[in-house]
Amino acid sequence: MKKISESTVRRLSLYLRFLQEASDGGLDTISSDELAQRGGTTSAQVRKDLSFFGSFGKRGLGYSVPELLRQIQEILGLSRSWKVALVGAGKIGSALFSYRDFQLRGFHIRAVFDTDPTKVGAAWGDLTVRDDGEMDAALREQGIDMVIVAVPAEAAQGVVDRVVKAGVRAILNFAPIRLRVPSSVALRNVDMTVELEGLSFALINR
Amino acid sequence: MKKISESTVRRLSLYLRFLQEASDGGLDTISSDELAQRGGTTSAQVRKDLSFFGSFGKRGLGYSVPELLRQIQEILGLSRSWKVALVGAGKIGSALFSYRDFQLRGFHIRAVFDTDPTKVGAAWGDLTVRDDGEMDAALREQGIDMVIVAVPAEAAQGVVDRVVKAGVRAILNFAPIRLRVPSSVALRNVDMTVELEGLSFALINR
Repeated sequence: MKKISESTVRRLSLYLRFLQEASDGGLDTISSDELAQRGGTTSAQVRKDLSFFGSFGKRGLGYSVPELLRQIQEILGLSRSWKVALVGAGKIGSALFSYRDFQLRGFHIRAVFDTDPTKVGAAWGDLTVRDDGEMDAALREQGIDMVIVAVPAEAAQGVVDRVVKAGVRAILNFAPIRLRVPSSVALRNVDMTVELEGLSFALINR
Repeated sequence: MKKISESTVRRLSLYLRFLQEASDGGLDTISSDELAQRGGTTSAQVRKDLSFFGSFGKRGLGYSVPELLRQIQEILGLSRSWKVALVGAGKIGSALFSYRDFQLRGFHIRAVFDTDPTKVGAAWGDLTVRDDGEMDAALREQGIDMVIVAVPAEAAQGVVDRVVKAGVRAILNFAPIRLRVPSSVALRNVDMTVELEGLSFALINR
């Protein structure tokens, strides 16, 4: 398979959301124009994005909503469930833990770790916040697939190095710092300030 | 000025972070290669990104760190401060409110609104959580530049319609739903599940 860009993968996630809305609304087919309009892109881009993964849809008839839905779920790896660990039981960690969309999409938080003795031992849903020192062994024992890093910037690289060493191959980072990981590890960063900077750019360049 | 893509603006935010690190580390100049390496891109892309905004740097000498830093801050609209309102005083809202990087970059949260009577009246730092009914007038009176939407998905479009009507032209949305805004309004979405889907895609496509 060709190398797929991060922006293509992001658009697939968006298409998936529209397909789910369409499906909930009882629609059977959807055109690349409709998908494009909802995704803020062009129908040529939609066809190109989907063409990476095989041929979908019939010319003039559009895409079958349930079929395309199932196929994009397959492509994105959402037809299975994933074991996620959360490192950092602060405010961001707590907000992420309560984010019910994770669960709905098959991302199950199975462990929470923190260094703060006042947080360790707290009950979070069915889980108990565990001491950071238990993390390395627990990631292996529980077969964790992905780790969400929600620790202060200065602690993040240290956590990530341990996570990588424990064999985890996917990391979502909320610490406002650029992390180094081996090329075999997938890393996504959520930096809220970058988003606000995009808005300030838009406001002064109109 | 040419139309600048969202990905270019995102990379400018990244370059800015590296320039700040370089500046903190006492570096005077930086090459497009170094910027590219830290930004996960090519030096040709760095030169192209910067060329949109005029000519920077001297061939063979690299860029002056303090000068490029100042210029990117200017381009991104960070040489002034912005008044931000937060709608939604739940867990995500609370995490965002404590996010000290916003303040450091000139994004100042000046008002917090919620519909929940048990939250209204609570002291958040120097602010008091206000009733949602006061929002529309307050956005105008306080001259709010940007609104962060951290309400449940089903409430988000209604909030955004009122925000737009109150004259706000920049919105950062955390609700997991695609919002409709007029083309004169800048909208950024942070969808944490999209990021996890990018990771699951990476895990199954290696």
